[in-house]
Amino acid sequence: MKFFFKPRGIAIAGATPNRRKGGYSILYNVRQGFTGPIYPVNPRYDHIEGLACFPSVMDVPDPVDVAILFVPAPAVPDMVSQCARRGLRGVIVESGGFSEVGPDGRSLQTRLHDISQETGLRVWGPNCMGLIDMAAKTVFSFVSPMIWEEGLIRGGVSLIVQSGMLSGGFLIDAMTHGDTGFSKICSLGNKVDVNECEILEYLLNDDATQTVGLYLESFVDGRRFMDICAHSNKPIVVLKGGKSSGGARAAMSHTASLAGNQQVVSGALAQAGVTEASDFKQMIDLCRGLADAPPPQFTSQGRIAVLTYTGAGGIVSVDFMEDMGLTLASLSGETLKALQTVYPPWMPPANPLDLWPAMERQGPLTALSVALQAVCADPQVDGVLLHSFVGAILSAKDLKEVLRGIPSTGKPVFCWLMGPKREIRDSKDVARAYGVPVYRELRRAVECLAAFFRH
Amino acid sequence: MKFFFKPRGIAIAGATPNRRKGGYSILYNVRQGFTGPIYPVNPRYDHIEGLACFPSVMDVPDPVDVAILFVPAPAVPDMVSQCARRGLRGVIVESGGFSEVGPDGRSLQTRLHDISQETGLRVWGPNCMGLIDMAAKTVFSFVSPMIWEEGLIRGGVSLIVQSGMLSGGFLIDAMTHGDTGFSKICSLGNKVDVNECEILEYLLNDDATQTVGLYLESFVDGRRFMDICAHSNKPIVVLKGGKSSGGARAAMSHTASLAGNQQVVSGALAQAGVTEASDFKQMIDLCRGLADAPPPQFTSQGRIAVLTYTGAGGIVSVDFMEDMGLTLASLSGETLKALQTVYPPWMPPANPLDLWPAMERQGPLTALSVALQAVCADPQVDGVLLHSFVGAILSAKDLKEVLRGIPSTGKPVFCWLMGPKREIRDSKDVARAYGVPVYRELRRAVECLAAFFRH
Repeated sequence: MKFFFKPRGIAIAGATPNRRKGGYSILYNVRQGFTGPIYPVNPRYDHIEGLACFPSVMDVPDPVDVAILFVPAPAVPDMVSQCARRGLRGVIVESGGFSEVGPDGRSLQTRLHDISQETGLRVWGPNCMGLIDMAAKTVFSFVSPMIWEEGLIRGGVSLIVQSGMLSGGFLIDAMTHGDTGFSKICSLGNKVDVNECEILEYLLNDDATQTVGLYLESFVDGRRFMDICAHSNKPIVVLKGGKSSGGARAAMSHTASLAGNQQVVSGALAQAGVTEASDFKQMIDLCRGLADAPPPQFTSQGRIAVLTYTGAGGIVSVDFMEDMGLTLASLSGETLKALQTVYPPWMPPANPLDLWPAMERQGPLTALSVALQAVCADPQVDGVLLHSFVGAILSAKDLKEVLRGIPSTGKPVFCWLMGPKREIRDSKDVARAYGVPVYRELRRAVECLAAFFRH
Repeated sequence: MKFFFKPRGIAIAGATPNRRKGGYSILYNVRQGFTGPIYPVNPRYDHIEGLACFPSVMDVPDPVDVAILFVPAPAVPDMVSQCARRGLRGVIVESGGFSEVGPDGRSLQTRLHDISQETGLRVWGPNCMGLIDMAAKTVFSFVSPMIWEEGLIRGGVSLIVQSGMLSGGFLIDAMTHGDTGFSKICSLGNKVDVNECEILEYLLNDDATQTVGLYLESFVDGRRFMDICAHSNKPIVVLKGGKSSGGARAAMSHTASLAGNQQVVSGALAQAGVTEASDFKQMIDLCRGLADAPPPQFTSQGRIAVLTYTGAGGIVSVDFMEDMGLTLASLSGETLKALQTVYPPWMPPANPLDLWPAMERQGPLTALSVALQAVCADPQVDGVLLHSFVGAILSAKDLKEVLRGIPSTGKPVFCWLMGPKREIRDSKDVARAYGVPVYRELRRAVECLAAFFRH
């Protein structure tokens, strides 16, 4: 699969100077990051945006490994045949209009399948959004060029998504909200040839990928998929679309997928050590927690210290923790002694630790630092759920000071963060740098911490 | 209770020019919006920030109805007695250090209780964050003055919160993210006298309040509370803290609450027509959906049209809908005919409506407008779940154009919104103006739509 991610040269069929068309976006995006030769293909132009344009794929010079096709579906099969004859290794078909639209599209897709089988040319798609590699800054996709104006964050989360629009939506949304650092995003569409098993294997061997999240409507080869997951030492998160009977019918018309029996699928995923997600953003949140936090210790039992500035938050945390199989750590005498140095005499420290009285007494920075260091060093604590309110109580700079002081025990610290909008983003950046996953909803923070300990 | 919200004059005991103290924040906040006379009380100063300061509550001139107390707990009971002698109608005790901190605090709280009983002076708190009225712009709270720098949004959601820090956190967070318009926010703390039943009744009679959300750790009078809820024609949402055994223990030390049997509580809430929430932000999201959307029709059955730009979103929506008791509307022939005018001939429109092919053909604005108007006019559709991706596909201005065209059928339109950060906020404002609640997670959007139809 490497030639798809790092081709020596790339042809773009359907490239156009019309800025309102996807074929323009593809050309624009490829030029932003890809450093090899780029060959627009369109018989109507000699040049597009200063690049020489070729009437057909057959005319494209060497070196060229991959073509991206964004032309009407009926023209795709012949063009794919040409790509095979021209000696390309792979094509990414981003056009729609195949199995997802009825009998005519199905027969087009069957032709694609046959050409791929006969020639050995690898076909990615159709009906997909291609691939994005954040480290290489290569975007082989018609995703809106506005992505470049936002601060793309590199990180350890890679995605495989069986949907075109959604992976674009995912990316733009997640990127511009500064939550998650991504490595590779792969939109597979109808999976006529290249499938989730191959890409998953590639990503599990990719040094930049720490966790893989997948949105799938079907499994091409369920047994092989579960086998790959069971042998992975990187965490894998799966969101399976089409769980309900109505959803399964809709999946049929979306990517022509047979959804399979949900109970069987869930059981197999759990057995293979996969974390199952139920919603799109939640899937990203789970991936982030599993990618950003340090790998769990062998002895971890899920005994959690809760540090909060609000008693109510502590109470509801414990409600969620009991629900999700985490336990409230019973703090050691040494920890309690350390806490007493910052707590007022009238308040004996107890887990969940409501630090507000200590914050009032010692200042938020001191109270939180002393408490966090004490619980991280406590052998009876496996992980920390930190509630933070940035802005009024703690600035992003303070948060950095606090997190810098955590002893390197490798214990996970997951954070529920509230505060005014502008402080939130800075604090997220700080937290990410220290391997602390940040969540905006308490339930989600506990859910991701629980997934971390299950893994 | 009206004098708490609209006092003729207000005294602030513990007022100080020291900007790092809560007593400064209270004075600052009160001065921002309250138009009646303000009397700082502190024996150490003649003047604070240009206002005459009084050595004791006894020295404060008329008119004065309410005092806010922010002084150390041991000094509170005597000061409350003075307030009664001075003829005040109520005090808001924002100081902590009462029942939540052990035997000494408990005896202080008992004294407060007795004084209130003997004198008839109403006591709000202690250990609370006071109250905020967004319409009157009165903030009787030590909440950080930074709230004034953000765009406070007025709206129909009122909150009653049995926690101090949390209501501040709630407010600042919700306010600065531009999601929810609030009317009144009431932080009750330990509820020594003023309780949730009285405030709830007040808010149900408040014209500016459309929906009330409550975070409670205990019910002062469960029977009366359920009775008020059962007779309310405004939607009520309750988040009950301390559901688990560990959470109940934590609630005991937080606001000294006996949490009660959760199953009994949940059953009674459901019977009283209350929507039960499970998390903080989710509670606000539920309130927002119930406050912003038009009141449901008598004939509403929860038959939903799903309008999406991503097949995957449609599929997962149907999964959630089946889970939560909503059904996929079977569209009328007339609606299908209208949709065919924007869909490409190779794609027969079907609910969930994947509009992407129609958007490519007609432009997003036309495709979405035609589809939304058709489903809203369809007698077989009770509500709409709209997926929107703003930015690349649709600008906030386009969204306005689309929503403006909705026929006034009174059918709820709930929106799952993705997109780049800066477009999101503008689009939220647009949607709110048209009574369309916006959610950032698909599951949440469906959950709130289901709560709307249950109500």
